[in-house]
Amino acid sequence: MGRSITHKIIEQHRVSGSMTPGEEVGLRIDQTLTQDATGTMAWLQFEAIGLDRVRTDLSVSYVDHNTLQMGFRNPDDHRYLRTVAEKYGAVFSPPGTGICHQLHLENFAKPGATLIGSDSHTPTAGGIGALAMGAGGLSVALGMAGEPYFIPMPKVVKVHLTGELTGWAAGKDVILKLLGMLTVKGGVGKVFEYGGPGVASLSVPDRATITNMGAELGATTSVFPSDGRTREFLEKMGRPQDFTELLADEDAEYDEIVEIDLSELEPMVAQPHMPDLVVPVRELAGLKIDQCAIGSCTNSSYSDLKSTALILAGHRVPASTDVLISPGSKQVVKMLARENLIEPLLDAGARMLECTCGPCIGMGGSPNSAGVSVRTFNRNFEGRSGTQDARIYLASAQTAARLALDGEFTDPATWGEAPARVELPDDVPSIRSLFLFPPESGAETEILRGPNIVALEKFEALPETIEADVLLKVGDNITTDHILPAGPQITALRSNIPAISEYIFSRVDQEFVGRIKAAGKGVILGGENYGQGSSREHAALGPRHLGVKAVLVKSLARIHRANLINFGILPLLLVDPSDYDRLEQGSGLTIPASAIEPGGVVDILVNTGESIQATNDLTKKELAIIQSGGLLNAVRQGRDQ
Amino acid sequence: MGRSITHKIIEQHRVSGSMTPGEEVGLRIDQTLTQDATGTMAWLQFEAIGLDRVRTDLSVSYVDHNTLQMGFRNPDDHRYLRTVAEKYGAVFSPPGTGICHQLHLENFAKPGATLIGSDSHTPTAGGIGALAMGAGGLSVALGMAGEPYFIPMPKVVKVHLTGELTGWAAGKDVILKLLGMLTVKGGVGKVFEYGGPGVASLSVPDRATITNMGAELGATTSVFPSDGRTREFLEKMGRPQDFTELLADEDAEYDEIVEIDLSELEPMVAQPHMPDLVVPVRELAGLKIDQCAIGSCTNSSYSDLKSTALILAGHRVPASTDVLISPGSKQVVKMLARENLIEPLLDAGARMLECTCGPCIGMGGSPNSAGVSVRTFNRNFEGRSGTQDARIYLASAQTAARLALDGEFTDPATWGEAPARVELPDDVPSIRSLFLFPPESGAETEILRGPNIVALEKFEALPETIEADVLLKVGDNITTDHILPAGPQITALRSNIPAISEYIFSRVDQEFVGRIKAAGKGVILGGENYGQGSSREHAALGPRHLGVKAVLVKSLARIHRANLINFGILPLLLVDPSDYDRLEQGSGLTIPASAIEPGGVVDILVNTGESIQATNDLTKKELAIIQSGGLLNAVRQGRDQ
Repeated sequence: MGRSITHKIIEQHRVSGSMTPGEEVGLRIDQTLTQDATGTMAWLQFEAIGLDRVRTDLSVSYVDHNTLQMGFRNPDDHRYLRTVAEKYGAVFSPPGTGICHQLHLENFAKPGATLIGSDSHTPTAGGIGALAMGAGGLSVALGMAGEPYFIPMPKVVKVHLTGELTGWAAGKDVILKLLGMLTVKGGVGKVFEYGGPGVASLSVPDRATITNMGAELGATTSVFPSDGRTREFLEKMGRPQDFTELLADEDAEYDEIVEIDLSELEPMVAQPHMPDLVVPVRELAGLKIDQCAIGSCTNSSYSDLKSTALILAGHRVPASTDVLISPGSKQVVKMLARENLIEPLLDAGARMLECTCGPCIGMGGSPNSAGVSVRTFNRNFEGRSGTQDARIYLASAQTAARLALDGEFTDPATWGEAPARVELPDDVPSIRSLFLFPPESGAETEILRGPNIVALEKFEALPETIEADVLLKVGDNITTDHILPAGPQITALRSNIPAISEYIFSRVDQEFVGRIKAAGKGVILGGENYGQGSSREHAALGPRHLGVKAVLVKSLARIHRANLINFGILPLLLVDPSDYDRLEQGSGLTIPASAIEPGGVVDILVNTGESIQATNDLTKKELAIIQSGGLLNAVRQGRDQ
Repeated sequence: MGRSITHKIIEQHRVSGSMTPGEEVGLRIDQTLTQDATGTMAWLQFEAIGLDRVRTDLSVSYVDHNTLQMGFRNPDDHRYLRTVAEKYGAVFSPPGTGICHQLHLENFAKPGATLIGSDSHTPTAGGIGALAMGAGGLSVALGMAGEPYFIPMPKVVKVHLTGELTGWAAGKDVILKLLGMLTVKGGVGKVFEYGGPGVASLSVPDRATITNMGAELGATTSVFPSDGRTREFLEKMGRPQDFTELLADEDAEYDEIVEIDLSELEPMVAQPHMPDLVVPVRELAGLKIDQCAIGSCTNSSYSDLKSTALILAGHRVPASTDVLISPGSKQVVKMLARENLIEPLLDAGARMLECTCGPCIGMGGSPNSAGVSVRTFNRNFEGRSGTQDARIYLASAQTAARLALDGEFTDPATWGEAPARVELPDDVPSIRSLFLFPPESGAETEILRGPNIVALEKFEALPETIEADVLLKVGDNITTDHILPAGPQITALRSNIPAISEYIFSRVDQEFVGRIKAAGKGVILGGENYGQGSSREHAALGPRHLGVKAVLVKSLARIHRANLINFGILPLLLVDPSDYDRLEQGSGLTIPASAIEPGGVVDILVNTGESIQATNDLTKKELAIIQSGGLLNAVRQGRDQ
């Protein structure tokens, strides 16, 4: 049987496990990337692992998220990331150089390589045939340490493309079309692999837009073939040596096939507040637009911004529509400058922001109250823009720029001729000199920290017997937002577990932190689906810091369960859910931790004299991780043996 | 006796008062400017005055301060300012177009005109011979309403310039030199008028830098002659019609004369934390530099940034020194782009920010902890950068750029040849089309407000008798920061008196707001020097909103006293300071308000049965303002008569 691109890459990097969909497979990781919002914790974790150099082919530390610098915390983080990269052998990309995914695509990603990044849009590099996946900070830290990355073996979906894009349709419309068809849950456990005769017509930036926003399908990742287009792109980026052809076998078999005829696509837009609420632009004609924001890792390439400039040139956007442009990289700005395309953008009224994530993550650029904002981004979740009642629409750069001129949604049939599709110039300027490449040895490098950057503490092994009180009893469907709220005040403390821990359960019970500090340790009693929602690992790290030894619940959400294991908190399941009602805040528990076996049942003694039964769904490996005090301890012990 | 430029302009605009230094003189105002941080309140006050159009030759509403847009409040403010300008006949400058003073100099300021602006650096326009003064928001609102602006007639200081700048010395070094000589209090009650043979050698941008930072002397304003340089500048800006020659008479007499030989100046720097702590750059050689920030209304001209680009071109700034560039206007960026000067800035590692105030006002760009930052700005007050322990040094653009290359302070003797002084190109691009000029009538314009923009309430006239309790008793030297704290959370509420009033006295007594809300009205009892510090008018508006009828104190600070009068709060002085001890929080007072005469004494009945005596230092005009409920009421009544 012929092999897909996905299978070829996985097979080449597989160090453990099976290629049967759903079973765990361990992959050797060639490259990692981190950004600053998740990267400080990932690097603190790498430091805690205790190696003196990263063990990947390439690790890059980007700064693109927290670049506004409203106080010392952001620049202290940047300085830490610069020096820690130098010390441990990673490349550092200074703030303002560009957005991690755009920069990685332009400068570092390789066809056929594995890449994990502590950012969910890492699949952007799939645009040139890398197997690129978003991962938690600790997974990336372990990847940098040379440890394999474990995933459930995905199903492979072929997206069979035919025809060519016409008129105002863009690469973005391919992924918007797919999102409309498959929904934001349609990609869970799957890799989307693009093929068919339509692929050749799509430029690398179009492909990268598609794989980037494959994340919104919930996919493990997305990947394009590495073909003549890829070769040309890498040559123009000054790195022809990084090209290898990577195509699916003619007779490759796929778990599913989806067909898209590119020639039938028209400009699409995702409506508030979900990327899969997709309709043709024409259906919204007449809706006034307060803001157009062009940029983000999805659509900030030279091609996107040159198209924008060509559309806006010679016009003045209505003053009631604010246009914000966040270029993807300094390379993009340099190309625009060389072609005298900065001036038409400025003359149209556009605001040129720094080369960062910016408005996409609510770091500035929020719309006005109840504002309608058309954005070339990948997510339009309620409130993500920073304005709770804003209405965010996702579209291509061409669509956003053209709509800006009208100041309202209009029917693309009225737009006139579309600008020519943009190809890279023959002479692409390099920005390679802006990256800091590490010295041969980091022995001389001093890591600079600030008061908000606190080394990860070393957690103790699980005691043989846990004697602790239930310090909080919560109901069903507790989210990680309940456990640790988001928002700028708290998010600024990401590099500081002791400080951020002050906010653990603050939305649920303001007294909790004081209570567990007084007790020194405790157990959380929860209901069904405990820990659902965002993957933030701080929702396990914070409780662990405060002394939570175990959570005793009816059921657990998948990602939070993994985070609890990673940081050495015992996730126990009530055998009889009605025992939940027999326990209260203050109930004293004696848990025979050393007697726990994978899937086994233990008796927990309650200080009322009763006892209740608890079980678990842990594998032997997971239990060992918890008993050693968490994954970092387990890795260290494994290495010492 | 010959006349100075200052006297010529004042004489031409004088509508009341005398030209004897210290006596009040009323001036007709030709132009006003507002920026967004103070402008929303100024425009709300203009709305409260009730005219249907501004009565100046020109009023411009700029947006340059609150442009980060971390939520709906900033963009709602921008939208309000855009629509209110359209309705009432002001020019609107959208966010990102540039910094108000740079834009006003380039596009609107006129030799010989009077200009007041709700920003302390309005004197920038003195660089082309305007009499330009910073003023409170209500003063600017009244200026827009055609009311005169009242100032104590200033003394006029001639700064007699000889010689020419050499080497690395720049216009900035002239004002740094003066600050070192005269200190930040050296200019109080004075206008600094530049003259002498050295003037001709200074470009308009150099002159504007000098008049801009004259604000740091505490001066009323600073002014240069309008000469051949001015003519050339205005011609290149596309407005030769705005030129008029304006020179001091040969035999003009001055109150003081200061001599500066330009040829003796060397690169200077103001050390933390005050603009007058000036030393030669060479004295700091060896001090590492974490950040260089180039821009602000002081040094963000084409000339500043072209010099920067020429100095940085072909070099890479050390990664340990972060370089931030905030251009003064889109016109500046367009000129840089046309000369291919963007690319060398990017290649040197510089970060190009939007054309806004940015780091100068702590809106992003904060240095790292304890960081050393060399900035081309005008103020280096402790904490203003957003990083409390940062050490800020003020320097010229040439000095900052050159130091960036070294990553530390070095002796200018080692810098090599200075770049040639930059002159404007012959063909200067216009950005006039980016401003929104108002229609003939605003009758059709709807003013767009957001939930955080609340119309100014109409205050009632002072009652004949005030019966109210002392709701707060405070000690000596209470500052306006005690009355209303600063900080981003509270400052974001500037357009919303009811919301910001929730923070009145919050640092002093958390219960105060609840107490006065329950009582509906109250009196503040204070000690000596009540209301010292920042001029923020919200520290009077908030108490007035809450129901404070009078303050009864031992003595008052000057600016807060004026604000109390402006917003109709009765400022009473204890005849016998020891009566302070006889009153407590909760003391009930009966104040015979209608019996108060300027400088007279009244008996206040206390609910203990005792009575105490109060006096005042109010003029008849001031008392009338208070009795009518504040200056806005008084103006409205004056107009109705």
